[in-house]
Amino acid sequence: MVPRYSRPEMTAIWTPEARFRIWFEIEAHATDALADLGVVPKGAAASLWKWWNTNPTIDVAAIDAIEAVTKHDVIAFLTWVAENVGDDARFMHQGMTSSDVLDTCLAVQLRDAADILIADLDALLAVLKRRAEEHKLTPTIGRSHGIHAEPVTFGLKLAQAYAEFDRNRARLVAARADIATCAISGAVGTFANIDPRVEAHVAEKLGLTVEPVSTQVIPRDRHAMFFATLGVIAGSIERLATEIRHLQRTEVLEAEEYFSPGQKGSSAMPHKRNPVLTENLTGLARMVRGYVTPALENVALWHERDISHSSVERYIGPDATITLDFALGRLTGVIDKLLIYPKRMAKNLNKMGGLVNSQRVLLALTQAGVSREDSYRLVQRNAMKVWESDGQLSLLDLLKADPEVTAALSPAEIEEKFDLDYHLKHVDTIFARVFGG
Amino acid sequence: MVPRYSRPEMTAIWTPEARFRIWFEIEAHATDALADLGVVPKGAAASLWKWWNTNPTIDVAAIDAIEAVTKHDVIAFLTWVAENVGDDARFMHQGMTSSDVLDTCLAVQLRDAADILIADLDALLAVLKRRAEEHKLTPTIGRSHGIHAEPVTFGLKLAQAYAEFDRNRARLVAARADIATCAISGAVGTFANIDPRVEAHVAEKLGLTVEPVSTQVIPRDRHAMFFATLGVIAGSIERLATEIRHLQRTEVLEAEEYFSPGQKGSSAMPHKRNPVLTENLTGLARMVRGYVTPALENVALWHERDISHSSVERYIGPDATITLDFALGRLTGVIDKLLIYPKRMAKNLNKMGGLVNSQRVLLALTQAGVSREDSYRLVQRNAMKVWESDGQLSLLDLLKADPEVTAALSPAEIEEKFDLDYHLKHVDTIFARVFGG
Amino acid sequence: MVPRYSRPEMTAIWTPEARFRIWFEIEAHATDALADLGVVPKGAAASLWKWWNTNPTIDVAAIDAIEAVTKHDVIAFLTWVAENVGDDARFMHQGMTSSDVLDTCLAVQLRDAADILIADLDALLAVLKRRAEEHKLTPTIGRSHGIHAEPVTFGLKLAQAYAEFDRNRARLVAARADIATCAISGAVGTFANIDPRVEAHVAEKLGLTVEPVSTQVIPRDRHAMFFATLGVIAGSIERLATEIRHLQRTEVLEAEEYFSPGQKGSSAMPHKRNPVLTENLTGLARMVRGYVTPALENVALWHERDISHSSVERYIGPDATITLDFALGRLTGVIDKLLIYPKRMAKNLNKMGGLVNSQRVLLALTQAGVSREDSYRLVQRNAMKVWESDGQLSLLDLLKADPEVTAALSPAEIEEKFDLDYHLKHVDTIFARVFGG
Amino acid sequence: MVPRYSRPEMTAIWTPEARFRIWFEIEAHATDALADLGVVPKGAAASLWKWWNTNPTIDVAAIDAIEAVTKHDVIAFLTWVAENVGDDARFMHQGMTSSDVLDTCLAVQLRDAADILIADLDALLAVLKRRAEEHKLTPTIGRSHGIHAEPVTFGLKLAQAYAEFDRNRARLVAARADIATCAISGAVGTFANIDPRVEAHVAEKLGLTVEPVSTQVIPRDRHAMFFATLGVIAGSIERLATEIRHLQRTEVLEAEEYFSPGQKGSSAMPHKRNPVLTENLTGLARMVRGYVTPALENVALWHERDISHSSVERYIGPDATITLDFALGRLTGVIDKLLIYPKRMAKNLNKMGGLVNSQRVLLALTQAGVSREDSYRLVQRNAMKVWESDGQLSLLDLLKADPEVTAALSPAEIEEKFDLDYHLKHVDTIFARVFGG
Repeated sequence: MVPRYSRPEMTAIWTPEARFRIWFEIEAHATDALADLGVVPKGAAASLWKWWNTNPTIDVAAIDAIEAVTKHDVIAFLTWVAENVGDDARFMHQGMTSSDVLDTCLAVQLRDAADILIADLDALLAVLKRRAEEHKLTPTIGRSHGIHAEPVTFGLKLAQAYAEFDRNRARLVAARADIATCAISGAVGTFANIDPRVEAHVAEKLGLTVEPVSTQVIPRDRHAMFFATLGVIAGSIERLATEIRHLQRTEVLEAEEYFSPGQKGSSAMPHKRNPVLTENLTGLARMVRGYVTPALENVALWHERDISHSSVERYIGPDATITLDFALGRLTGVIDKLLIYPKRMAKNLNKMGGLVNSQRVLLALTQAGVSREDSYRLVQRNAMKVWESDGQLSLLDLLKADPEVTAALSPAEIEEKFDLDYHLKHVDTIFARVFGG
Repeated sequence: MVPRYSRPEMTAIWTPEARFRIWFEIEAHATDALADLGVVPKGAAASLWKWWNTNPTIDVAAIDAIEAVTKHDVIAFLTWVAENVGDDARFMHQGMTSSDVLDTCLAVQLRDAADILIADLDALLAVLKRRAEEHKLTPTIGRSHGIHAEPVTFGLKLAQAYAEFDRNRARLVAARADIATCAISGAVGTFANIDPRVEAHVAEKLGLTVEPVSTQVIPRDRHAMFFATLGVIAGSIERLATEIRHLQRTEVLEAEEYFSPGQKGSSAMPHKRNPVLTENLTGLARMVRGYVTPALENVALWHERDISHSSVERYIGPDATITLDFALGRLTGVIDKLLIYPKRMAKNLNKMGGLVNSQRVLLALTQAGVSREDSYRLVQRNAMKVWESDGQLSLLDLLKADPEVTAALSPAEIEEKFDLDYHLKHVDTIFARVFGG
Repeated sequence: MVPRYSRPEMTAIWTPEARFRIWFEIEAHATDALADLGVVPKGAAASLWKWWNTNPTIDVAAIDAIEAVTKHDVIAFLTWVAENVGDDARFMHQGMTSSDVLDTCLAVQLRDAADILIADLDALLAVLKRRAEEHKLTPTIGRSHGIHAEPVTFGLKLAQAYAEFDRNRARLVAARADIATCAISGAVGTFANIDPRVEAHVAEKLGLTVEPVSTQVIPRDRHAMFFATLGVIAGSIERLATEIRHLQRTEVLEAEEYFSPGQKGSSAMPHKRNPVLTENLTGLARMVRGYVTPALENVALWHERDISHSSVERYIGPDATITLDFALGRLTGVIDKLLIYPKRMAKNLNKMGGLVNSQRVLLALTQAGVSREDSYRLVQRNAMKVWESDGQLSLLDLLKADPEVTAALSPAEIEEKFDLDYHLKHVDTIFARVFGG
Repeated sequence: MVPRYSRPEMTAIWTPEARFRIWFEIEAHATDALADLGVVPKGAAASLWKWWNTNPTIDVAAIDAIEAVTKHDVIAFLTWVAENVGDDARFMHQGMTSSDVLDTCLAVQLRDAADILIADLDALLAVLKRRAEEHKLTPTIGRSHGIHAEPVTFGLKLAQAYAEFDRNRARLVAARADIATCAISGAVGTFANIDPRVEAHVAEKLGLTVEPVSTQVIPRDRHAMFFATLGVIAGSIERLATEIRHLQRTEVLEAEEYFSPGQKGSSAMPHKRNPVLTENLTGLARMVRGYVTPALENVALWHERDISHSSVERYIGPDATITLDFALGRLTGVIDKLLIYPKRMAKNLNKMGGLVNSQRVLLALTQAGVSREDSYRLVQRNAMKVWESDGQLSLLDLLKADPEVTAALSPAEIEEKFDLDYHLKHVDTIFARVFGG
């Protein structure tokens, strides 16, 4: 976890205190169920909650000190609780194993993290929608291979991003369901020493579903799917960040990250305004993607369980969720305040001497009876001249002066192919597909 | 693609012939829709299908030769079709761009690959279920950290695998839906030169859904999610393969890959019977997982599109699906014919002098009023003696001879804790959760 | 292996024929050594070479047919050789194990692949050097964050690439040495049944060093290092490819991939000239990097060996080396024929109204006694006006009109800060560092 | 960074204080050189060092507060230094850019981290050597595919690990040299505003070499190679950790992690002694390997530089080095105190009824004139009976009772093939190769 790439709400999920609080709730709910089943005295569960309701401070240092001796974190925690609650605490954890606590706790943490990330996506989607509608009909050049292709609108670019993050939201909702299971099944998962009804009770109280078959641990394919989904979302963040980095290039400058007063772009060059936020997002995306492979490697635990997954999760549990939360927040801010320059877009759009209309002329020629190959050749030979003139020549002028072209199309017909609105006529259709309505 | 790790049905999806066939269908269906819209003559579409219905051989070499000149695969294909169909062919591809063909084709291929993989999973699930039920109550030792823990059944191991692959099936069904979209939206995705109804028609004919907003290409987050899902499935394959590799170890030998007559385990050591299939699966899983990262890196294309994704997909499209198909088939065969040795399982289960019952004694002591810490100490001190005796001492004997233990529990009470059936009493519950019923 | 991204020399290393030829040489050289040691008859080795000198065709299909029964590739090969050589063949492979053959063969193949890749790097370095010297003093804008910073030369860009690939060459030479070891140590590597002098003989004949301690297999940390090195080289390829993609953008157009006659940039848009080769290289780099992780996962084999590495190497051995060879060749061609536009570079360099000189003015102000903070503020406030004017205003004019600036610097002093040569004065120094001399 | 997987010496490299101290030294040494060149007053450099020699506390919070306004870390630091040093501080950083400071600082940090890791490897190598010599001739079964193969010694296993980590040491020394470069080249690396002699001076003072051609930043192929090397080392850690995990399995139990008094293996099962340290190392290895991919992705920065690498390095700089340092320390402790059980090794070695001698019999039969195929068949048919008897039958007995075998070999000849020392005769040779002497 890197503090500068962290936000407090997500970070709070991963503190030792938060973890111990979830552990207590798992243990206390389980003790309730054990008491209902007559396995432990009703009073034992009551004692636990009575102490808990005093809102005790979690003494992390004390628990760590016990762990330094026992070398076992859950035993250390239980010992500390027993020191506070007294004799009734011995009924806690009856028939349970540490993994029941640890894995169910991780499920709660990842579920809560997923909820924050879903809210992050909702915030991003709202901003993308607002700005997409704002620039629904702002013409700009569409680029394939970094080369001018044909006109689009800036709103279409954002509509695409909206649709992509909306898919990511659905994927995350599925991954959240995948991860949100409770296992209280005891050693090697047989329920030998603990009734399955305890698991059902704890699951219900914590808002989880029951893990159908655990083997002391919750199977790690669930976690792998969760972190893989975060990796896909990171890929989408990089895509949108890269778009903005491109648009802010000096020669393009169609959009720009907001540049706050007092900000310095470079210690050496006072003229600089750099897309540092989106460059930063590009790097953060690399990290979130980098956590996918360890998560995939965690699936193949030995037999009923080994503990190799645990250290990995101590890193990637916080690091992947905190980083992605920060990145989504940062991206939302970038889009929200993005400086958008329609005039520059218009200027760039016209930079290529009308080349962006080459396809329409090609189609018109074929429809006028010229073979596809000849049409292509006719348009390409004029287009290449414009290309090489660095925008000084006009495709329209050249075409009107090319007798092979004018043999098939009249000047008016040619001119009609250079109409910008022609390219925008289905923007409504696409917006309706993406945003409904 | 490595021939020895390939099966013909999946491989057939990825041949040049198969690709060109899909390309033709996309073009011809699109021409139908264009004809219905009055953009091209009805006869043009008819000519295409008429030729197609002669079941023409796809001359891959001829198409490649054209591509060597044009350096553009779709143009090469269209030129070749035109050579065969004649003049009407010039109406093909009107207003379309290569990506419309390429991306929709890839969607068909990945969708078809997903269908094979889903069938593979169904076959694996059927075998897992059969063998799980066969060994539902075959006792075997459960191991955590590779160390004997408490009894489970061999059926439970397979039930866990069933549940895991059943989750994978659901994930793959979702990934299939994610990938199965059709884009016929023309240059930079604006439909400027092609009516959206063409896309709808082709989508319907090919069994795809319409891509809501494409940018000449189908967005690559869909593909990233698809390949990430394959990576998760590979992780599960490695898990089950690793289980079998462990069970076949000389000292364990509770199960063994089928060893066919005439097979040689080692060129040098005639006594060897090695788990080479599951070791192979472990390696194949590494490959399928390795393809996830390039797929994630493919998401961030520049602006409306660049073509950097294409070379990646020429590798991982076939390699990931063919390898996973092969691996699932191989794993299904391994489980189907797995030699399972219940006698050895029983022998191993009893190897540790009854240590596997330590928890029950611990719980009984605490329920008899001994503190948890004292109970743990009492059991551990006897357990460690058994442990160090290499199975020569019996935990039951030692406990009955420990006055601090017998002060709390009678000999009969202690003996009752060494009952195997105690551990198996919830097997039915778990099977019902996994298999229903 | 994707044929279109393959070159014949590298591909030839990985054919079954080539593999079987190396196998034979290992076996025959080993038999020579065994004969010298008196373990097998001298005539046995002679028989092998006698047959070999007839230059026999390797009947891959026959060997595969035998493997289909024995399920063991080396045994199948030995059987086939015995069918050809006759009775003396039974002395082959005495005391050896399959891995002796397989791993030493892989060492030969990777060593040969490394030699091709080193030659590829040499070719690339030669081209980079030539073009760097050609454009040693061609001024162009240096960009940080995609934003104009200060002038550099195009030669400097290529000198950087040269230095980077020269480092990669040194890394590959080291990786080649790491991989080029011979192990003929028999089952579990103890030399129990084969004298270490056999290994020494084979190593010398094949140009390998002796593996100091093998465990039936050559340790896979060597291979991991090899493939990791290829991954680093791929990263450098992506860097240079990305540079060219940026330079070819429509708005920048300072350099361009060679566009051959007859080439079509787009099936739909005849005006397009796209940087498809460097985009392709970007994708290929993703693949070569993607093979690093499976190679790293291959290190942790079980005990003296398991065979999980084998399937991985059947993919990445050919795929990583063939792809990288192709990519290096393609990149060399791109640089060799790169169209470079000094006029456009000059135009772009002057596009920003002189902003690229902001640092020099800043430094001059501080040296004239203005505090750093005030200097920064003075330059920035004028620079931002120029920035927002889209190149219409001139920084020089504004500075000369700013009384706070002119209080510290005279107009002549300010003008002197706008001298291009100032930025190029150390190009010689850097070239001498990179190219020597 | 996860505190429980961190050691103080390595962690200290990565604190904000440590970073600011290195920044200061870079700036002050550069100011010395600038003063020598007459660019800034001699007194300015003296003022810096005078303040520094008062051993001032680095007020991280104050610097962070300035950064919150300027959004630029180096400017914030310079401002804070100026507040402390006074007017002379304005001569600092003349002609430099932030990257000169940041990248050279990172080089110092990674170089220092490499030095700790090299020392870690030395400590591990010393322990491996000691324990290898201790068990040089302790016989144990060698296993391929997890299946008993032929005898080795425990010392050989450790000698292999020694050789592997010795290779890793050499790789790390090379990676250290690769990373330890100094760049003080100013904006876009042209030295326009700073003399190359400044760089040479700072490099010498900090023990770095001069970066031949930087582009404002040090090229990231260097860092990629560094982190890839750490990933390879992590692979070797996983290999040795996996070996120990296997050896500690209940059925094997040939070695065991030291189990300290007061330790609890399981909260539920008091009998457990689990290889938790080596399982933990397996997980940590996944993390260190996981950082390789982001490092590889960092190479392709845009043009002269973008800042996407920076966030990645804020994670993996500390995380990869701290985790690897911890892992190497933990592994050294595990090997140092490893409980090794020669009796159990002997017991396991004899477990298979002499099957481990099958190869010798095979070779003897062929040398007695039986064809290789027949020899294999004869040995295999007896071996399979022993295999299936679960160690109850003896291969020696069966062979002596097989008339086809005794037709070729006398009983005494057969018995002689069952001699353990035969397998150990080259241990000295291998030890001499690995440890010299």
